[in-house]
Amino acid sequence: MTADKAAADRQHKARTAKHKEAVDKRIAAANVDKGLLLVVTGNGKGKSSSAFGMVARTLGYGQKAAVFQFIKGKAEVGERAYFARDPNMRWERCGEGFTWETQDRDRDIAAARAGWEKAKEALSDPSVHLVVLDELTYLVTYRYLSLEEIMPAIEARPAMQHVVITGRAAHDALIEAADTVSAIRDVKHAFRAGIRAQQGIDL
Amino acid sequence: MTADKAAADRQHKARTAKHKEAVDKRIAAANVDKGLLLVVTGNGKGKSSSAFGMVARTLGYGQKAAVFQFIKGKAEVGERAYFARDPNMRWERCGEGFTWETQDRDRDIAAARAGWEKAKEALSDPSVHLVVLDELTYLVTYRYLSLEEIMPAIEARPAMQHVVITGRAAHDALIEAADTVSAIRDVKHAFRAGIRAQQGIDL
Repeated sequence: MTADKAAADRQHKARTAKHKEAVDKRIAAANVDKGLLLVVTGNGKGKSSSAFGMVARTLGYGQKAAVFQFIKGKAEVGERAYFARDPNMRWERCGEGFTWETQDRDRDIAAARAGWEKAKEALSDPSVHLVVLDELTYLVTYRYLSLEEIMPAIEARPAMQHVVITGRAAHDALIEAADTVSAIRDVKHAFRAGIRAQQGIDL
Repeated sequence: MTADKAAADRQHKARTAKHKEAVDKRIAAANVDKGLLLVVTGNGKGKSSSAFGMVARTLGYGQKAAVFQFIKGKAEVGERAYFARDPNMRWERCGEGFTWETQDRDRDIAAARAGWEKAKEALSDPSVHLVVLDELTYLVTYRYLSLEEIMPAIEARPAMQHVVITGRAAHDALIEAADTVSAIRDVKHAFRAGIRAQQGIDL
């Protein structure tokens, strides 16, 4: 080893040790455990996928997870096929598709309300570690459900239960109430280049 | 039903039917199938989770997936525990932690290179439907691997293989080459409110 290389290595070690000290201090300062409310919003790809990744994490610890899909239609999709096998998984498809698919506002509202009643069960069950309210934001935007119905159930949930809400244009009240908020920006999307939804990626 | 309600319903139906026509036209125009390169970047929470959601989708169709974790340490985490059981899953932990954890640049580089050699195998195997290069962006940023090594292997991969690259500050060349790019903005994070990483959510 040259003297230069040895000096560079020492410098790297000193710099990273200092960084580690700062990181460790921040980690030590964060010592609270609590059930989180996460909101994953924005127009970019990855909102539901991200929630499903957290489902995998939860099931990986042998804990229970519940997913309520408020908009997606009845089509069988990969993630449901995969997770539904797990005895710790509850998977409910509550919606029948986007407004322009169903073209029937009354039916959409009825489906949303029926779904929400099921979600409320999970939100009051301390044995459920993670509740995913997939595409719930649209129900607020379309006024199928009011924040006055949604927020109290979320706030009154078991102390260690995590909730993930996904969907575009999350209402300010959801963002305000959340512990963690990620906004996914659509920088580029294959669909706009004429590529259709791909198995394993989009469905 | 009142006349007003009936008129509103007709209007809703007409408006959503028109929207459906526009959406269906765009969907019909997107008729290409191809293996996608996705980049999920930005400072917000959800990059790796999003990739793991796509892993679930892929395995749900009975297809093969491979994950290469370039930075994360040796700690057992929920998603690995969950997916590793699946015979269609290959899960490789290539890194030993962030630079400030290892404090040894030579060891980090060696781990990155060894991991990349394994990833190249998956990138040349047409039976693998999805390859996740988790936190690969840091390897480029730290100059552990060069784009001249990475890009040709990605570009020469099987035509229907999807690749997801995650990590902060993705290099312009990765964004340029990608079909879909999502940038996750950190609007709010529980960690800054003193809440530590939570099982099922962050690990």
